[in-house]
Amino acid sequence: MKLIDGNAIAAKIRDEMRAEIEKEGIKPKLTAMLVGNNPASAVYVRNKQKACEEVGIDSEIIKLEESISERDLLEVIRRLNEDKKTNGIIVQLPLPEQISENKVIEAIDPLKDVDGFHPINMGFLLAGEPRFVPSTPQGIKELVLRSGYGFDGKHVVIVGRSNIVGKPLAALLLCKDANATVTVCHSHTKYLNEVTKEADILVAAIGKAGFIGEEMVKDGSIVIDVGINRIEDKTRKSGYRLVGDVDFDAVKDKVEAITPVPGGVGPMTVAMLLVNTVKAYKMQ
Amino acid sequence: MKLIDGNAIAAKIRDEMRAEIEKEGIKPKLTAMLVGNNPASAVYVRNKQKACEEVGIDSEIIKLEESISERDLLEVIRRLNEDKKTNGIIVQLPLPEQISENKVIEAIDPLKDVDGFHPINMGFLLAGEPRFVPSTPQGIKELVLRSGYGFDGKHVVIVGRSNIVGKPLAALLLCKDANATVTVCHSHTKYLNEVTKEADILVAAIGKAGFIGEEMVKDGSIVIDVGINRIEDKTRKSGYRLVGDVDFDAVKDKVEAITPVPGGVGPMTVAMLLVNTVKAYKMQ
Repeated sequence: MKLIDGNAIAAKIRDEMRAEIEKEGIKPKLTAMLVGNNPASAVYVRNKQKACEEVGIDSEIIKLEESISERDLLEVIRRLNEDKKTNGIIVQLPLPEQISENKVIEAIDPLKDVDGFHPINMGFLLAGEPRFVPSTPQGIKELVLRSGYGFDGKHVVIVGRSNIVGKPLAALLLCKDANATVTVCHSHTKYLNEVTKEADILVAAIGKAGFIGEEMVKDGSIVIDVGINRIEDKTRKSGYRLVGDVDFDAVKDKVEAITPVPGGVGPMTVAMLLVNTVKAYKMQ
Repeated sequence: MKLIDGNAIAAKIRDEMRAEIEKEGIKPKLTAMLVGNNPASAVYVRNKQKACEEVGIDSEIIKLEESISERDLLEVIRRLNEDKKTNGIIVQLPLPEQISENKVIEAIDPLKDVDGFHPINMGFLLAGEPRFVPSTPQGIKELVLRSGYGFDGKHVVIVGRSNIVGKPLAALLLCKDANATVTVCHSHTKYLNEVTKEADILVAAIGKAGFIGEEMVKDGSIVIDVGINRIEDKTRKSGYRLVGDVDFDAVKDKVEAITPVPGGVGPMTVAMLLVNTVKAYKMQ
């Protein structure tokens, strides 16, 4: 069994980005909007900023009150769309309930939409001509490729149909530079075990700790675990630990390769955001 | 075996549209652009116009020279985007080679894009909030539903990953009002027979006459044949006949239901264009 080291691969991608930015003498800028006081969101945004600094991307965090109106938030986005110094714009989700996430996503200039969530970027992806691909699907693709595996003719089974992972990943792997056979499963899928057992590459993006057991995985397959779930652990100071959607210990001796949680898909998501920001700079 | 009668179902949809248009006293208008002298394109456009007339939708065909420049075609589209009388705009494909199909599709106002090919409409579909769905996928969905079958928890296997059928159909059937498990296969798929044999609902959209044989189909499944292929037939005056991607005679005794070619998916495509045109009128 090969452990796919997301930390190492993400570090390599950051190295490549740093080298490219230095060599070309460019100075891309990412602006992140952080609304309210969600502590997890604050951590995510800080991690993104840290990664930007590490590779030479300017970054700015715009902190906005929890009580901000939708209209005022859209006005901030409009100004950033016009700001020539800002190449990439992200809005950390979730947003307070007075604000429509869809309206916010649709307000971002598609050429600065480095999260790839704008419907026109989703559409380019489905049409097989991706511009900005959401970070997690793109990170999954890179993890597999940089571990020495390919997608051509492989049966990829994705469990979970979110707009952030499952569906854009399906579209990405159907593109002609990947050429995978793709199945998307979800909560309504019958005989899920039988479907997942067909997978050469199984992607778990469900949000349920240890959901994928030994009986759901094919011998010699590659397993990508997107889940990040907190479970109680009294042996830890924090009182909890992070586990994936895959029952790692049950599955590990059966598979060709697997990503750990943490240290698998997670670090790739931030790395691919940097890649998209450099791409945005070059497209503008 | 039940023969799914696309002609009858399409006629019923046209009846519903006619009743709705009369009852609401509305007058939607579809404008079709026909570039050059492709005889098949001329037939398609005329059929669409005929269907419009039948239900009370105004229609106009703008005929343009084969030699028209991309710039001039885009200018025509720009005028139609602004024309308040035009609710739906379609450009019959294929286009002459001096013109980029993507640029033309992207030039159409997404609110008038009744073919649903604009990337933003593809993106809304992938995100699970469809506005305009391309006619063929939407027609396939209606065929199945109106024949008394459902998609929830069913495994739908789609053979073919085009932007007009395979990929938008996958996105459509992953939406929460359908809830299918969806697999997309294509020319790079290995062990295709094994994958198609898993299908509760098999959709063939490959463009190869009689490609789907008995050994590829599960007992009691539903088979939707999107292919329209000409094959030589000396017993016909025309010298050819139309067949689908499915070997109908080989498969028919095995399945629960199947669409014929012609008279299956084909007539639905035009009917769903009418549905989209009425929807466009109401959205504007």
